[in-house]
Amino acid sequence: MNIVESLRELIGAAAVLDAADTATRSAGVWRPDNLQAAALARPASTQEVAKVMAWCHANDVSVVTHGGLTGLVHGADAGPEQVILSLERMRQIEEINTVQRTATVEAGVILQTLQEAVEEQALMFPLDLGARGTATLGGNAATNAGGNRVIRYGMMRDMVLGLEVVLADGTIVSSMNHLIKNNAGYDLRQLFIGSEGTLGVITRLVLRLREQPSARDMAIVGLESFDNVAAFLKHMDHSLGGTLSAFESMWQEFYQLVTTAPAKGKPPIAQDYPFYVLVESQGADRELDTQRFNNAMEAAYENGLIVDAAISQSESDCEAFWSLRDDVEQVMHGGFPIIFDISLPIGEMEQYTSTLKAQMGDAIGEHKLWIFGHLGDGNLHINVQVPAEDYMRLRPIVEQQVYAPLAAFQGSVSAEHGIGLEKKPYLGISRSENEVALMRTLKSALDSKGILNPGKVI
Amino acid sequence: MNIVESLRELIGAAAVLDAADTATRSAGVWRPDNLQAAALARPASTQEVAKVMAWCHANDVSVVTHGGLTGLVHGADAGPEQVILSLERMRQIEEINTVQRTATVEAGVILQTLQEAVEEQALMFPLDLGARGTATLGGNAATNAGGNRVIRYGMMRDMVLGLEVVLADGTIVSSMNHLIKNNAGYDLRQLFIGSEGTLGVITRLVLRLREQPSARDMAIVGLESFDNVAAFLKHMDHSLGGTLSAFESMWQEFYQLVTTAPAKGKPPIAQDYPFYVLVESQGADRELDTQRFNNAMEAAYENGLIVDAAISQSESDCEAFWSLRDDVEQVMHGGFPIIFDISLPIGEMEQYTSTLKAQMGDAIGEHKLWIFGHLGDGNLHINVQVPAEDYMRLRPIVEQQVYAPLAAFQGSVSAEHGIGLEKKPYLGISRSENEVALMRTLKSALDSKGILNPGKVI
Repeated sequence: MNIVESLRELIGAAAVLDAADTATRSAGVWRPDNLQAAALARPASTQEVAKVMAWCHANDVSVVTHGGLTGLVHGADAGPEQVILSLERMRQIEEINTVQRTATVEAGVILQTLQEAVEEQALMFPLDLGARGTATLGGNAATNAGGNRVIRYGMMRDMVLGLEVVLADGTIVSSMNHLIKNNAGYDLRQLFIGSEGTLGVITRLVLRLREQPSARDMAIVGLESFDNVAAFLKHMDHSLGGTLSAFESMWQEFYQLVTTAPAKGKPPIAQDYPFYVLVESQGADRELDTQRFNNAMEAAYENGLIVDAAISQSESDCEAFWSLRDDVEQVMHGGFPIIFDISLPIGEMEQYTSTLKAQMGDAIGEHKLWIFGHLGDGNLHINVQVPAEDYMRLRPIVEQQVYAPLAAFQGSVSAEHGIGLEKKPYLGISRSENEVALMRTLKSALDSKGILNPGKVI
Repeated sequence: MNIVESLRELIGAAAVLDAADTATRSAGVWRPDNLQAAALARPASTQEVAKVMAWCHANDVSVVTHGGLTGLVHGADAGPEQVILSLERMRQIEEINTVQRTATVEAGVILQTLQEAVEEQALMFPLDLGARGTATLGGNAATNAGGNRVIRYGMMRDMVLGLEVVLADGTIVSSMNHLIKNNAGYDLRQLFIGSEGTLGVITRLVLRLREQPSARDMAIVGLESFDNVAAFLKHMDHSLGGTLSAFESMWQEFYQLVTTAPAKGKPPIAQDYPFYVLVESQGADRELDTQRFNNAMEAAYENGLIVDAAISQSESDCEAFWSLRDDVEQVMHGGFPIIFDISLPIGEMEQYTSTLKAQMGDAIGEHKLWIFGHLGDGNLHINVQVPAEDYMRLRPIVEQQVYAPLAAFQGSVSAEHGIGLEKKPYLGISRSENEVALMRTLKSALDSKGILNPGKVI
């Protein structure tokens, strides 16, 4: 059995790379290595995906689906016996319906491409994240992407109205619902969203669009205690009455990192507060929304919730504020970062983070520790930087420090990045044996041969 | 095998009604008949539910789970060989966490009970529907309830953060996630939400709460064309920038019905417009929100989208407007109503509804036809009233008229009520053979003996 030749017969010679050509491609963002696989198939349609899957199923060849390779948890790693199924030739935006406010796309469409196409129609696709220029919508769905505006618009799961999927045996299940409400039978979408390519290959999507906001207001705020951070979240959520669109926190060390050279950003407020929050409101009435935002900020100041604030005066201020928060690559300077993406109840965060800070030094010696994240969603990004030469040795110790305490209060080892291979050893911290057993039941029901992204997640 | 005796040994004598006692209870809202079953078990905890399920599984006895019996699609009908599992003794609100903004409840808690308990903490549980005083939160989850504010807050699916479920064999899967973001493995919640009791018994829930709005504005609006209804939706959604909380439509005949005696309501605007919309904004700043709402209404009037409007001047105006929309029981006067709950793309609605009106008379002769619904979600309620004596004969003809045209544009035979037994013959209009086959795969994976609410949905 020659995998490359067989697949070429099915979908054309140019559509299939052999092992050598596959090995010339990068394994993805922030990865030093290249891909490896027996072949890399680039089907141009759902029907071609189905042909590839049917052949692989019949021949017991396992398949790893690739989108933009911007995942951070080794969820798309492949091996020399496997076929990589890349959706890079399925990049068509099939329809943008401005009345129904939906977009129909092939799974290989880049997130930013859709964002921009939709903006031209005065609409918005609200998913937004740093990898927008590379990540694909199929990948966003397969991993249930989160990002910057979950507090207002939800995760990718909440934006997918319908999808088309190819099952392990090549069966096409088209569930291209365009409706906001549809209770006709089980909601099959949900099964595939967030299953990291282990239950099916998502090939097309119907996405929900929103009216484009025409005004926004932002502030960077300094706070003196974590209790005030939590109270400020509640205050702003209440006071903005539906327009709150982001609530991002930065612990002091991260704020200093992204507002001090070599970072390009300058500090909009002093650098010595223990906590910072970036807060954003998206609305539709420039004057009234700004007034409302300023009223809410003033009340927060008068009530003692916040002690300092820089308030945006222009769209370019807003962009500057976001670019501070998004300058995550600063954690790359001076060592190797170990990156986490946990979630936990807001009421547990102060205790958790202060214990983490206090104990990390005892566990691994000298290091840097930065904390920031989508606090409004309970999601913290924790970055621990260690010397490059100690990375492999320290990594499991750091993971233990970060993950183990989460079990006590049902925190999650992955808020948004997913499990992949990287977090698989820690899944049990967040999920019970019976939950994992039920996941396995689903996996065997949908992929009895175990050929879809085997070994990932569970 | 004596079912009643066996179950009494497991969970106590008082917890199990025999067939005769069961038959004294009503089959539910708007139902003339009484329940029938071999026994009605009323466990007091998840552990007791698990005992009942394990026994029924071992003895091949099938089980129908009951919440508040407010469903409208015969989704909870049971037969003389079956056991009814009622969650009526599991009514505890275990926790309302005002920092995390979650409620932890047993599945038998009444929707309105939770709404009120949460309001006392200045929070809101945004699911709302006519049956709020009887429907249970477990039932809301099992049927993925919708209701009045889906456009802003989503359906029940979007409000459930975690759940505990008992599988067909009695296994307890506790997935009581409290976090907004959690990508640690498959999202097991989604499997059970909206599966109408066919995949597991939901026993406890963690629900997401929202900040309580402190201001609201409403209007009842007259419009001269359906195009204007669609444009008005887009206009208000855009102009209110996140505060739009309801957009309900009423076709002329329905508006006349609920504003003319014997209905208690009076018409806030003239009765001769072809279309009416009830629009609501929920915000947090009385003055600014009202100004914004009035600006949006003024612009709609100036642009010719709307021709008449009554705007609320007080909270009691708002209540009066809602009570018109909610006075659905008026369709009971003068005949028997056949009630539908479809959804379809907004761009198809005018053609669909005018064809329906034009052809219904040919199909069934004299009748009344009322259309209203959650237009912002694409969800129309269609009520066809026929003479009581012709009900049984005409019902299938009416169903055919309403459902068959939906297939052409992927409409749904159930936007929110579910499939149950009533719509099962029509599931194929909205879902493909491969979709239904995949539903069956899930059903057999989770309930290989087919003892959970057998025969429902698929």
